[in-house]
Amino acid sequence: MRSYRKIVTVTVPARTGLVNITEEVERALAESKVQEGLCLVNPMHITASVFINDDEPGLHADYLRFFDALVPHAPVSAWRHNDTGEDNADAHVKRQLMGREVVVAITRGKLDFGTWERIFYGEWDGNRPKRILIKIVGE
Amino acid sequence: MRSYRKIVTVTVPARTGLVNITEEVERALAESKVQEGLCLVNPMHITASVFINDDEPGLHADYLRFFDALVPHAPVSAWRHNDTGEDNADAHVKRQLMGREVVVAITRGKLDFGTWERIFYGEWDGNRPKRILIKIVGE
Amino acid sequence: MRSYRKIVTVTVPARTGLVNITEEVERALAESKVQEGLCLVNPMHITASVFINDDEPGLHADYLRFFDALVPHAPVSAWRHNDTGEDNADAHVKRQLMGREVVVAITRGKLDFGTWERIFYGEWDGNRPKRILIKIVGE
Repeated sequence: MRSYRKIVTVTVPARTGLVNITEEVERALAESKVQEGLCLVNPMHITASVFINDDEPGLHADYLRFFDALVPHAPVSAWRHNDTGEDNADAHVKRQLMGREVVVAITRGKLDFGTWERIFYGEWDGNRPKRILIKIVGE
Repeated sequence: MRSYRKIVTVTVPARTGLVNITEEVERALAESKVQEGLCLVNPMHITASVFINDDEPGLHADYLRFFDALVPHAPVSAWRHNDTGEDNADAHVKRQLMGREVVVAITRGKLDFGTWERIFYGEWDGNRPKRILIKIVGE
Repeated sequence: MRSYRKIVTVTVPARTGLVNITEEVERALAESKVQEGLCLVNPMHITASVFINDDEPGLHADYLRFFDALVPHAPVSAWRHNDTGEDNADAHVKRQLMGREVVVAITRGKLDFGTWERIFYGEWDGNRPKRILIKIVGE
């Protein structure tokens, strides 16, 4: 069995934003030399998501608007987590709804994807560097 | 390490619907001859989910009603993704809430499930064939 | 390849509640002797979640309040699943929104976590023992 680990760091210069990280994952997969196996991608932070969907700006605007309406950032005093001095309780909830991680099949050395599948980092509490873990296991 | 890949194609003859695919996954597992490992199941499409829950028609009606109320399909003009000519922005959101994929433990050649766990394909933008990827890794 | 399986049983003495199970997973990982691989953790029940987030009581109160408001338990007659005699339809929906499972990277014999990542069992229909499956694959 072969395993490979890589950290990618992303800084979103806003409270929320979505970043296509597919090429970073493909590069890690090439470096790993794994031909058959599984690829796990997750943020190492708990106010962020990794997810698979479409690279279409209108959809990304829909995601940000929908989740901000469903889980309002303000008033920050509405959330008990923010009694600790934080202002990011909403980000912890959004990350659960959008998901933490993706596991992707690796087949013949490639991410085994349908036509429109792309991997995104979803930031819900940005303006600072965040680490994304790529772990590849297979042979 | 042994790996096995299989594609199952499903057509839901409606916009939304839930399909029990447990037997297809069990068949793929038997074909793989893997005794211990992990089984990843995911749609290769970005307006569909794979999830694990109960095979009970009332619950399935609840899921479809709940997600259609929370993430309305109409008016389609409410979603920026639909400015591209699509009408399925809601389906991309529902897929995130319900989830993309499941990873199931394989123990002694079987899906390592509790009493009521079953695997479903969740269609949010149907009326056309969709592919489901089953990837099994283990030995 | 090495694999290891362990069941942990949890009883939440209330309808809903969140339990930190990180130490139980770390103990299973140490028992497995796996140094590099993947660790899957999931409930064997379909009204419960396993998820990764912060061990902060205010946040846990926010989660329980948010999901109870979004997916009301009562009136139980509002849900078709409850026509079967159950009263836990809301729990099946909450489990989907919060997620079923986590997959965690194993690196040098440890859970490969960021500073604040902890593993929780999320109970949405408690007052009875529930089983959590830990499956570790690697070498």
